[in-house]
Amino acid sequence: MNLAMIGLGKMGINLCENLIRNDNQVVAFDLNEVARQKASDMGAQSVASLEEAVLALKKPRIMWVMLPAGKPTNDTIDKLSQLLDNDDIVIDGGNSFYEDSLRHNQILKAKGIKFFDCGTSGGKSGANQDGNFMIGGDDYKTFQYIEPIFKGIAMKDGYLYTGKAGSGHYLKMVHNGIEYGMMEAIAEGFDVLEHSKFEYDNEAVAKVWSNGSVIRGWLMELAQDAFSKDNNLQHIKGTMHSSGEGKWTLDEALKLQVPTPVIGMSLMMRYRSMEDDTFTGKVVSALRNEFGGHAIDKNK
Amino acid sequence: MNLAMIGLGKMGINLCENLIRNDNQVVAFDLNEVARQKASDMGAQSVASLEEAVLALKKPRIMWVMLPAGKPTNDTIDKLSQLLDNDDIVIDGGNSFYEDSLRHNQILKAKGIKFFDCGTSGGKSGANQDGNFMIGGDDYKTFQYIEPIFKGIAMKDGYLYTGKAGSGHYLKMVHNGIEYGMMEAIAEGFDVLEHSKFEYDNEAVAKVWSNGSVIRGWLMELAQDAFSKDNNLQHIKGTMHSSGEGKWTLDEALKLQVPTPVIGMSLMMRYRSMEDDTFTGKVVSALRNEFGGHAIDKNK
Repeated sequence: MNLAMIGLGKMGINLCENLIRNDNQVVAFDLNEVARQKASDMGAQSVASLEEAVLALKKPRIMWVMLPAGKPTNDTIDKLSQLLDNDDIVIDGGNSFYEDSLRHNQILKAKGIKFFDCGTSGGKSGANQDGNFMIGGDDYKTFQYIEPIFKGIAMKDGYLYTGKAGSGHYLKMVHNGIEYGMMEAIAEGFDVLEHSKFEYDNEAVAKVWSNGSVIRGWLMELAQDAFSKDNNLQHIKGTMHSSGEGKWTLDEALKLQVPTPVIGMSLMMRYRSMEDDTFTGKVVSALRNEFGGHAIDKNK
Repeated sequence: MNLAMIGLGKMGINLCENLIRNDNQVVAFDLNEVARQKASDMGAQSVASLEEAVLALKKPRIMWVMLPAGKPTNDTIDKLSQLLDNDDIVIDGGNSFYEDSLRHNQILKAKGIKFFDCGTSGGKSGANQDGNFMIGGDDYKTFQYIEPIFKGIAMKDGYLYTGKAGSGHYLKMVHNGIEYGMMEAIAEGFDVLEHSKFEYDNEAVAKVWSNGSVIRGWLMELAQDAFSKDNNLQHIKGTMHSSGEGKWTLDEALKLQVPTPVIGMSLMMRYRSMEDDTFTGKVVSALRNEFGGHAIDKNK
């Protein structure tokens, strides 16, 4: 099919390659000229503005927005609501918060433009081949029209129409919440091994666990890969950044009053890892000292 | 090779079939006659006592103990230390606590018997085919002697010699601790979906997540399987039993002072699920009532 990829970052450029390999005609736009050149080299028709991207497409135009969540995506969708018209199609493949997607759906729907919020999983490699997509959108008939795109670039059984607009990004949000918990659980296990009295080879452990164990899966394979490069991760600092989806899952759980202590704790451990010291630690130390005269560690 | 399987429960009987399929001559013992008959039907030589099992084997005798952890395993290994002699081999494939295995190693070593503590993962299906084994034992040369057994019944790259005695069961313990955390994270995610305003098909969600997503893995495939039988698990009560390994992982983390909040919380949530009501709940309600006059729910 004929569609535009808006945003040629890590995910967008790999999706571009995947789409072209699967016989789609791709118009590629990014503010960055190097990224545009890369897309051209792959066989995409690169353009230097959103307006040009719109002009380069046949009706109904399909615009796949693959930008960081928040302002970049929001601004682009606002602009597209001006540039596109009736029956055109916008797919937001980024990690937008589902309430933003509900708003985008309203904005676009008012102009007769069909909106799909598409959660994308599988990392960079999945974007490039055998990807994973969770697609929400109010218009199922239009979904069927664009379905061949997903059929081509997804792993077999690796895409799902999830229902009404918002449901795709919501599902991806929860997917990421689960991911936080799974990653923390795996990591805590290796932390116990690292401190144990036995001498384990982390790479060998991740490898045996990847082949036939109950906890096998892609994250364990990625752990094997990481340990193969640096078996005790000496060159990596344990600060755990996060980009929002885990927090949104917890926000949602709090709103719904669903107990999700493990997902919540995984998020808190990420926040803890970003601090060298904590005020909590200072307060507890001060109180132990106040009531029991217990020694405190002084700042130098 | 020629070996005896002691214990023909869910795991033992499947291992039996796997071993026979891979050209081992298996002597099979269980107290239960039906299980013995089943093993005979598979082509094992069934025997009605531990003594007969010992007599049926050529030297060096290899005895694979596949019994519930604790008393059944401990008693059997004690008996084997009497029945076997120099250079015989005992493999404990059950979920024994690693400190029990360290003790078993000492008892057997005193008689010149070689001991291997073998953590077994992959469930019943893995026991039957493409299993997963983590094998500790002080004598690496003897491990090399029995290695062909594991090579045959394990998935490719699905067995590992983990080092000194105890290290196999220790690794399996931590594997199960990780499993607790991963399972709780997955379950909490589905709980959020179940309460959300969207209408998700749990089976379809587990299926799409199993095909190309970051959180793909065997546990997600098992979730898909469970949802395919009962999409909202209406027939399952949410009491989460546990058989010890999660607690041992937490005990070990506490001993080593390694923070493992997610594994710990997963265990606590299992304990919580076993209670209809909690004394914690009563105390908090009573205190809210005491200080703020907040309403309490009364027992009828």
